[in-house]
Amino acid sequence: MRNFLDENFLLHSATAGSLYHNYASPMPIIDYHSHLVPREIAEDTVYENISKVWLSGDHYKWRAMRAMGVEEKYITGDISDVDKFKKWAEVLPFTVRNPLFHWSQLELRNYFGINELLSVTNAEKIYDACNEKLNSSGYSCRELLRKMHVEVLCTTDDPTDDLEHHIAIKNDGFEIKVLPTFRADNCLFTDDPIIFNKYIDKLAFTSDIDIPDLEGLFEALTNRHDYFHNTGCRLSDNGLAELASVPYTGSEVKEIFSRLRSGKNISTDNKLKYQSAILMFLGHLNHDKGWVQQYHLGALRNVNSRMMDTLGKDTGFDSIGDFNQGKSLGAFLDSLDREDKLAKTILYNLNPRDNELFATMAGNFNTGGIKGKIQYGAAWWYLDQKDGIEKQLNTLSNMGMLSCFVGMLTDSRSILSYPRHEYFRRVLCNLIGNDVEKGELPNDQDLLGGIVENVCYNNAKVYFNF
Amino acid sequence: MRNFLDENFLLHSATAGSLYHNYASPMPIIDYHSHLVPREIAEDTVYENISKVWLSGDHYKWRAMRAMGVEEKYITGDISDVDKFKKWAEVLPFTVRNPLFHWSQLELRNYFGINELLSVTNAEKIYDACNEKLNSSGYSCRELLRKMHVEVLCTTDDPTDDLEHHIAIKNDGFEIKVLPTFRADNCLFTDDPIIFNKYIDKLAFTSDIDIPDLEGLFEALTNRHDYFHNTGCRLSDNGLAELASVPYTGSEVKEIFSRLRSGKNISTDNKLKYQSAILMFLGHLNHDKGWVQQYHLGALRNVNSRMMDTLGKDTGFDSIGDFNQGKSLGAFLDSLDREDKLAKTILYNLNPRDNELFATMAGNFNTGGIKGKIQYGAAWWYLDQKDGIEKQLNTLSNMGMLSCFVGMLTDSRSILSYPRHEYFRRVLCNLIGNDVEKGELPNDQDLLGGIVENVCYNNAKVYFNF
Amino acid sequence: MRNFLDENFLLHSATAGSLYHNYASPMPIIDYHSHLVPREIAEDTVYENISKVWLSGDHYKWRAMRAMGVEEKYITGDISDVDKFKKWAEVLPFTVRNPLFHWSQLELRNYFGINELLSVTNAEKIYDACNEKLNSSGYSCRELLRKMHVEVLCTTDDPTDDLEHHIAIKNDGFEIKVLPTFRADNCLFTDDPIIFNKYIDKLAFTSDIDIPDLEGLFEALTNRHDYFHNTGCRLSDNGLAELASVPYTGSEVKEIFSRLRSGKNISTDNKLKYQSAILMFLGHLNHDKGWVQQYHLGALRNVNSRMMDTLGKDTGFDSIGDFNQGKSLGAFLDSLDREDKLAKTILYNLNPRDNELFATMAGNFNTGGIKGKIQYGAAWWYLDQKDGIEKQLNTLSNMGMLSCFVGMLTDSRSILSYPRHEYFRRVLCNLIGNDVEKGELPNDQDLLGGIVENVCYNNAKVYFNF
Repeated sequence: MRNFLDENFLLHSATAGSLYHNYASPMPIIDYHSHLVPREIAEDTVYENISKVWLSGDHYKWRAMRAMGVEEKYITGDISDVDKFKKWAEVLPFTVRNPLFHWSQLELRNYFGINELLSVTNAEKIYDACNEKLNSSGYSCRELLRKMHVEVLCTTDDPTDDLEHHIAIKNDGFEIKVLPTFRADNCLFTDDPIIFNKYIDKLAFTSDIDIPDLEGLFEALTNRHDYFHNTGCRLSDNGLAELASVPYTGSEVKEIFSRLRSGKNISTDNKLKYQSAILMFLGHLNHDKGWVQQYHLGALRNVNSRMMDTLGKDTGFDSIGDFNQGKSLGAFLDSLDREDKLAKTILYNLNPRDNELFATMAGNFNTGGIKGKIQYGAAWWYLDQKDGIEKQLNTLSNMGMLSCFVGMLTDSRSILSYPRHEYFRRVLCNLIGNDVEKGELPNDQDLLGGIVENVCYNNAKVYFNF
Repeated sequence: MRNFLDENFLLHSATAGSLYHNYASPMPIIDYHSHLVPREIAEDTVYENISKVWLSGDHYKWRAMRAMGVEEKYITGDISDVDKFKKWAEVLPFTVRNPLFHWSQLELRNYFGINELLSVTNAEKIYDACNEKLNSSGYSCRELLRKMHVEVLCTTDDPTDDLEHHIAIKNDGFEIKVLPTFRADNCLFTDDPIIFNKYIDKLAFTSDIDIPDLEGLFEALTNRHDYFHNTGCRLSDNGLAELASVPYTGSEVKEIFSRLRSGKNISTDNKLKYQSAILMFLGHLNHDKGWVQQYHLGALRNVNSRMMDTLGKDTGFDSIGDFNQGKSLGAFLDSLDREDKLAKTILYNLNPRDNELFATMAGNFNTGGIKGKIQYGAAWWYLDQKDGIEKQLNTLSNMGMLSCFVGMLTDSRSILSYPRHEYFRRVLCNLIGNDVEKGELPNDQDLLGGIVENVCYNNAKVYFNF
Repeated sequence: MRNFLDENFLLHSATAGSLYHNYASPMPIIDYHSHLVPREIAEDTVYENISKVWLSGDHYKWRAMRAMGVEEKYITGDISDVDKFKKWAEVLPFTVRNPLFHWSQLELRNYFGINELLSVTNAEKIYDACNEKLNSSGYSCRELLRKMHVEVLCTTDDPTDDLEHHIAIKNDGFEIKVLPTFRADNCLFTDDPIIFNKYIDKLAFTSDIDIPDLEGLFEALTNRHDYFHNTGCRLSDNGLAELASVPYTGSEVKEIFSRLRSGKNISTDNKLKYQSAILMFLGHLNHDKGWVQQYHLGALRNVNSRMMDTLGKDTGFDSIGDFNQGKSLGAFLDSLDREDKLAKTILYNLNPRDNELFATMAGNFNTGGIKGKIQYGAAWWYLDQKDGIEKQLNTLSNMGMLSCFVGMLTDSRSILSYPRHEYFRRVLCNLIGNDVEKGELPNDQDLLGGIVENVCYNNAKVYFNF
């Protein structure tokens, strides 16, 4: 029997251990997609206590607590931080086989040196131990990033963001690159014309460009895209149930936008036409500046409307959806490619039933001169656990080229989530090592170690060229 | 090499063995969903021969025989029981890797003490040996249930059922609780107005309530729901391709029902509106009485219409379907939840491609005070085999909380199918034991053994509160 | 650690080894579906060099090269054959974990006796070594087939093909049966009336039957079906995204065809009606002549329109699609079965998310007298690798009858692809052997070896009855 969470955690062969310790582990981290708060990095925040930094924004943990029947007051309510921590400690042992169990223990170990398993019996002791560290030197926001050997990290930002924190971080010489990502989703959601127009007004204000019509919108988006580029941004992102790509004419979309701008509702068909047009426009901007564009597809969000009304979005009430992805995804990429305007692209899939579709779709638009131009992106959100990562890596291997993969990202709201890179690297090395042990790959550590280094770091370094 | 079907069958590590033998195996069985025949339990039927009890209603075996090219007369025809048994014995060895192979041998072993593998060479001998036992004391219907340590079992019943057998069983003091389940599917299927109205007339007759209009239907359903409740029922069930949840108004549905009642066909849109309304109404009834509601989703039934005409339904001509589940499932649960009328709910999925959707959907409606309020239900029908059970348990573990799971059920028409609980428990313990052996879970038998006991028995005990 | 690619490659237990070496490996090959070029077999082509025979038509390799960023000139362009080979040798090591890595090395070993791993350092040497062999006796097209113990192979042919090469092969007494397959897809694709009518004209010319109307089409198709039958054809095939099966009337379809024939476009609904009618008609022909009909479903083809314009179809720009398969597949099979016109049928699925649907659908139409009448076909195209084959075999095992399976086919354009049968057989034996080692199957080599022989050869021999 192996020990739990020792140095060879998840590494089930000598080859796996060697690949991990010699090749994967020494690589720095390029965390090209996260939801970290730039302000905290700019201010080098010192966190008040472990609950604030570990529980206060983590909807994964919230869902686990709700499943256990924990009252909401312990989760998002007014109870004290210490009581929230103790409640979480009560629940944690019962998350066995959920990634939270591994993630939580890895985070306690890697950041705080705590090897005990958190439970109700040691909760107060661990709470105090963590807080003592958090309030000592070496545990500020930036120090936490340094501990993890982060080289670059990208946040996720609205076009209307002034990026003041990114600029401040750059200006004060922080050695870790902290770059924004252009996520223009708010231009795409047209269900509520009031919310939509409020947003468009904000965009007009930020860009100082009037947006009476579609040209105005395009001009303002271009303005912000330029601004982001000048602040070091090299990435866009969109989070959508499915990628709209229906035929439209320019004049149709002008009319649709004018109708929206006048506060009127538009039909479902017109929503799709409008979305298709905006996504194409953004795709052109991304290509013209040599950016990488990301699409996170497949979530069915805010399913529980009562909790949406109470707590807002991103609070743990989202599902994996079952959308039709193939035709629209193909048509979208093809439309850009036909005009030679297809930027480097990463396609993230939330429903594992569509893994093979995504992997084979990416392969349709690769082209000379760029290694892995279209990427089938890393396992994401609910899939960011051992099984999900293995499925993504295996599908990518079987249907595409593992060796061209740009690898892992945290996609996290939590500064403490960097062990997910370690987790990913261990799973990667274990899969390859296992193949070697079974005689299904040659025992060529130069070749395989090199591929491991590439997937963990080098491929991203070249691909993003930050 | 391990021996076939020994005491550590499916248990591939010492920890798995210990979890199974010390924690899982001693637990009684709460079989909260089955299709057993209440009359047989009430009458304590003695079965004439092994063919009658083992082959005569088992469409799993029938499909296997048809795949082998066996003539229908040996399957559902007039051939003698002994010849049917011999034909099945001829086929059984060729079901290797199908669950029938394991199930059949487990059933022969656990009920009849037969350790030989059934084949054409020993068929007559085994036929005689089984029949001798079946005709001895200790093999009546109730004795077969006692052998398996069944504590509670729930049958599946139409609202028009008078539940006389359930009442008789209760009245004569049988120590195993045998409870009905309210399955009102016949109110939902409106494709054929003649069949529909015949059913509604029967419902009116049984409830002694006129059903000229929708109010009448609601009154009659409430009457039967009350009646079931008074007979100990605490569970409902519906078996549907997909859960209808489209917007409707009360007056629309009244009109639709009246049209149906007058014998006219209704449009597909109106079928969905009507179904949505009835399902919502039933959901309210379930919530108000504190029941658990079950939804079995995803089957494409009666695909072979020629055999449907000949043999009727549930005879082995059903498929796993590919329906869109996400939006309607979310909308349905949300509609009930918004009104605070969402009962405890179990969602069973037949297409494994939707496992992740179901698991994450369940997690959207958990709430304080109830452990595992919304359950992603056990692997069902075609999925009730090692791979299918493992996939359900792994998905549940990764996307939800295994420790809150209410566990297994037989869902079977056969009194001899209780070894499926054993099968499930072995698979469960093997997964957990394997994680421990690999250092992916801590070797904490108190914690893990406790979780095993909960999943096998305690969670169901608390959740259903029969 | 096991050696790479030794004689027990993919065989991870003693039982697996014994099953493979004693039962699977000695079986001849019935390759009942391929895309080999009949002319090459008729002429007994001697291949100029390894690039011509190995790279020039293999869109799997092309996709891998494009993923690595290789310029198109090295893939489908004018660069010399030796430079193409060297470029491929540069890429091959980076295909680790993709089936190309195994396939390529197996092909070099089994045909050319090369055990070194191909890479940029030995590319020229291996190029020369292969070419020397290819130009020696014993490496002509027919010799390559003989080396692999092929007994029968079926090509894929258009109804307008005159089958001159098949006739020539038969007449000159080649001991391997080379039979055509009737693939009438070109009658079904009606998107472009000009292309469609050009094809129908060709069909009229070949059959010497006027096709002014639907009767003409039916007559011409029957004529060609007869012709193929007389040339030894016993198989049809269709490659479709999804199997159309919508209601239609004869007069509707007559009108639709006349409209098409007059060069006009038809609506999407009418395309489906027309397809449904033609597929039904072809199904009748297949049944009446005792053929086996094949349906390859689920591909989303020619996604990259720019490359389609440049290189044409089947050049590496196709995806796995996400189509709705259940209802139409069920309705199609049921329509034929109702009239007792359902031929033996093989259903191939390209999207593994639908494996369970296909496996259970096949089981709905099995019937007495034919072993495995409806087959859930072998893992295909992107799925023709270890994971994909394992998934197909496991799904078939769990939801159907592995023992009735007609087994593997190459489905390949390359004369060098026969090691895929070896690959499949190794995976099959490994799965069964593993079950035995774990005590999940009895250690009965007669039973299991017999099943292995049946799946590898005997089942196909009986089923196709060539």
